[in-house]
Amino acid sequence: MSTKVHKKANVNGFPCKETFNETDFFFDGLAKPGPTNNTFGFVVNTANVEKFPGLNTLGLSMSRGDYAPYGLNRPHSHPRASELVFVLYGELEVGFITTGNVFFTKTIKAGEMFVIPRGLIHFQKNKGPTPAATIGAFNSQLAGTQSIATALFAAKPTVPDDVLAKAFQIDTQQVEMIKAKLAPKS
Amino acid sequence: MSTKVHKKANVNGFPCKETFNETDFFFDGLAKPGPTNNTFGFVVNTANVEKFPGLNTLGLSMSRGDYAPYGLNRPHSHPRASELVFVLYGELEVGFITTGNVFFTKTIKAGEMFVIPRGLIHFQKNKGPTPAATIGAFNSQLAGTQSIATALFAAKPTVPDDVLAKAFQIDTQQVEMIKAKLAPKS
Amino acid sequence: MSTKVHKKANVNGFPCKETFNETDFFFDGLAKPGPTNNTFGFVVNTANVEKFPGLNTLGLSMSRGDYAPYGLNRPHSHPRASELVFVLYGELEVGFITTGNVFFTKTIKAGEMFVIPRGLIHFQKNKGPTPAATIGAFNSQLAGTQSIATALFAAKPTVPDDVLAKAFQIDTQQVEMIKAKLAPKS
Amino acid sequence: MSTKVHKKANVNGFPCKETFNETDFFFDGLAKPGPTNNTFGFVVNTANVEKFPGLNTLGLSMSRGDYAPYGLNRPHSHPRASELVFVLYGELEVGFITTGNVFFTKTIKAGEMFVIPRGLIHFQKNKGPTPAATIGAFNSQLAGTQSIATALFAAKPTVPDDVLAKAFQIDTQQVEMIKAKLAPKS
Amino acid sequence: MSTKVHKKANVNGFPCKETFNETDFFFDGLAKPGPTNNTFGFVVNTANVEKFPGLNTLGLSMSRGDYAPYGLNRPHSHPRASELVFVLYGELEVGFITTGNVFFTKTIKAGEMFVIPRGLIHFQKNKGPTPAATIGAFNSQLAGTQSIATALFAAKPTVPDDVLAKAFQIDTQQVEMIKAKLAPKS
Amino acid sequence: MSTKVHKKANVNGFPCKETFNETDFFFDGLAKPGPTNNTFGFVVNTANVEKFPGLNTLGLSMSRGDYAPYGLNRPHSHPRASELVFVLYGELEVGFITTGNVFFTKTIKAGEMFVIPRGLIHFQKNKGPTPAATIGAFNSQLAGTQSIATALFAAKPTVPDDVLAKAFQIDTQQVEMIKAKLAPKS
Repeated sequence: MSTKVHKKANVNGFPCKETFNETDFFFDGLAKPGPTNNTFGFVVNTANVEKFPGLNTLGLSMSRGDYAPYGLNRPHSHPRASELVFVLYGELEVGFITTGNVFFTKTIKAGEMFVIPRGLIHFQKNKGPTPAATIGAFNSQLAGTQSIATALFAAKPTVPDDVLAKAFQIDTQQVEMIKAKLAPKS
Repeated sequence: MSTKVHKKANVNGFPCKETFNETDFFFDGLAKPGPTNNTFGFVVNTANVEKFPGLNTLGLSMSRGDYAPYGLNRPHSHPRASELVFVLYGELEVGFITTGNVFFTKTIKAGEMFVIPRGLIHFQKNKGPTPAATIGAFNSQLAGTQSIATALFAAKPTVPDDVLAKAFQIDTQQVEMIKAKLAPKS
Repeated sequence: MSTKVHKKANVNGFPCKETFNETDFFFDGLAKPGPTNNTFGFVVNTANVEKFPGLNTLGLSMSRGDYAPYGLNRPHSHPRASELVFVLYGELEVGFITTGNVFFTKTIKAGEMFVIPRGLIHFQKNKGPTPAATIGAFNSQLAGTQSIATALFAAKPTVPDDVLAKAFQIDTQQVEMIKAKLAPKS
Repeated sequence: MSTKVHKKANVNGFPCKETFNETDFFFDGLAKPGPTNNTFGFVVNTANVEKFPGLNTLGLSMSRGDYAPYGLNRPHSHPRASELVFVLYGELEVGFITTGNVFFTKTIKAGEMFVIPRGLIHFQKNKGPTPAATIGAFNSQLAGTQSIATALFAAKPTVPDDVLAKAFQIDTQQVEMIKAKLAPKS
Repeated sequence: MSTKVHKKANVNGFPCKETFNETDFFFDGLAKPGPTNNTFGFVVNTANVEKFPGLNTLGLSMSRGDYAPYGLNRPHSHPRASELVFVLYGELEVGFITTGNVFFTKTIKAGEMFVIPRGLIHFQKNKGPTPAATIGAFNSQLAGTQSIATALFAAKPTVPDDVLAKAFQIDTQQVEMIKAKLAPKS
Repeated sequence: MSTKVHKKANVNGFPCKETFNETDFFFDGLAKPGPTNNTFGFVVNTANVEKFPGLNTLGLSMSRGDYAPYGLNRPHSHPRASELVFVLYGELEVGFITTGNVFFTKTIKAGEMFVIPRGLIHFQKNKGPTPAATIGAFNSQLAGTQSIATALFAAKPTVPDDVLAKAFQIDTQQVEMIKAKLAPKS
């Protein structure tokens, strides 16, 4: 059918766009695995409101994570959403840390799920010799992600060495080494 | 590791349960296809707060839909959530109707997604000769489902015949026939 | 008094309009009964943010329903709000269906009230030989309405016959007959 | 029909009551005018969650105001809700004051409406020689009311005289006189 | 470091401003006491979204209150937020009135705190011969303030004398006297 | 005055406690500096709903941070709230990292403020040779805190060495050294 623009069809709340049409409500950007031939053997693609306009005001988004064998989705947090993860295939070691500093962890397989309360640090690691993939759902149209090591050691401008040295109880030389390793490739 | 109970670890908001442990945050109830040998060739399983205690206060849940060849997830709505659907496998004809009475529809394949703004009537139909499956994410811990034909023609006690006859512009004999067909099997 | 424009008087949250004045906060569009000489003996008028600008960001709207003798407000739902109904005059049979498929119903008279949890299908029917009227309040500035039979059988483009036939367990000829009866008059 | 208790029918969110039935969703407490033979010629009755259990979690409540000729609903505010008022009969002078200290006012008649943004001081006065009545809708299940003069001059224990004297730029003798007039009758 | 503009750095939700930079997230407008040589010996300065752009969508703001000896922050309410007050220095008599018309009061000193539930009338009075100051936090980016006596007796246009006379049980001459005293100085 | 219990005074929403009294709304736990003679020269005390019952349902809490000369409030995040910080005394270097990995930083002095969007990593460091102190306000009654280095290297049970080694691009020996330094003292 045509994708003619319906100017005043109010779908959810007051429309932000003057016009919208049915293509705004469909998305195929997560259909295929992303490339995992990087340092961490992991890549994420997100279906949020910036790419998928129909999500606007609906309070939902998704992301797809792809893992090379033994690949790692490093410790990170989503500042604006809880996350519910469904394993598409493979076997993952997953975990999150509570504000009480308790580490909750488990190995989960295809079709199994886990939930990460909003804002908490979590990670997933492929335990096996074959690729793995997950679908994560978020209760925000733009959950945001903060990869912990990258935020601390590779932000621009840089976080001062003395702050990081004291926080991790290492010396500033070690801080500089981590910064060098995590710096974005130009 | 053990699943010892952490009495005062506040994970999200004020805890409703006196105690919780890590098993509350994992769930395997959607891992396998459900049985689809019924009238509609469709079955849904839900991972909501009633079965998955860690979802409490987190504003998220999921469901898995399984489709026999040409199976139908009949027109229904979720009163308390928007839904974001990801196709696990198969090819589905999907659609929802806006409050402006516009029908948005498309055929989508494995890995593709669509979103249904909260409360709107929608359906999915397996277009092909092989099984299909979907994962739906909801921004509520208990989204609820109202299957339209069942709600109108098979609620208990029954909705009056004259209301249904007038609404659908059919006669009460036809209402009684639909009621008979949709009545729950005892 | 004059209706001079107050450029920076913040009434509720950050103003969306550059300027507003007192006429934005008053509305007389529900004062008179609407015409009920139609197939269903029912008409609704709404006082939502599209017509009543002062409702913007306030999370409230109202509608007035007018019923001819034995008129019917057909089964419908409001995707974005709960509704609290007050009977102005007349005597109505009202009902809603829960997500557990239980039908809650009662006959209510002038001055009596009932509440419909958000997103659930409900209807009202004038039981008597005299006109009736209601005021419905919504906790949304734009609650939306989905009239069930119309959404399924009279949306544009049309919902496929086979989906409707299977959902209601009727044949496609019967579907076509209902579609013909419910089609908007041109 | 019977009012048998449906133990697990989830109507809206997770049920707070173990059981509920259809009588929870109907209410007749606002059907009749309340007595207005008091100092102010005004009485209000509220249909909130304390009296109308089905409102729980639904974010809505209503109140009925009855006015003797020239009766006054004194300046007051609702701390937890916006209010949308519909005039049942009579003719009222209504007004609210914005946070920019602008007074918005108008005379409205049967069937006309006005909205008061949440938390703002407002009043209604019967302009005519016949009774008047209103229905107010609130986007909270328990909006609360603070009658300004009563809160300041008749709370228990009493607000200090010097605070009130300085606030209104009157002397403490005048404060004592107002307190005496507004004290609850024992 | 420079304050170069980061065009697509999404900090919280979808950005309302096309661009923002770090200066949006800092504010020094509450650093110094305001002038208290006025009738009430009190002045308030607010750090809300109108002055402090980084607060946009974050749901927080602050204000600083400065008190001359025996100065009074007159009875007022914040329509859109609860307030949590921290005493910087001095000793204050504080109080709020509940919707049940109960007056809660206490004398608090430097470093002590009290909380005022949203929308309720409250006041603070300097009990001592030295200046006092407070920091108030609000869970809204624009809480709004309604000073009760000023709203009722000094709004523009004016609230009718007969309404105020009846509300406070005084005569209209007394109303006019209060209005004259509270009128804004030109 | 007495602190007699008011059984049915509804202050905000439906009361969770059967009874409450005025002492629930006052708190003195942040009045004095906490001890800063520890590794980081920093201590935080929180006034949240666990200690300050009147905050229940009000959406606000506060914390006091005390800094020894050159003390550090290490990089951390609050999963459930934005934070607005006011400097009581001293001079702090503050900073937060956006989800776009931009580091926003500034030196701020007594009376100056900065805001951290919810969930983002931030830190504060005393720049001077004298003590410093801050008041932080949160738009949650229980914001939670996750100290990054402690969450990753000192949670119980421990996060696997290989995950941390890969995340920070260090070897597992270095991971073990950091874990040893950050382990809670018994």
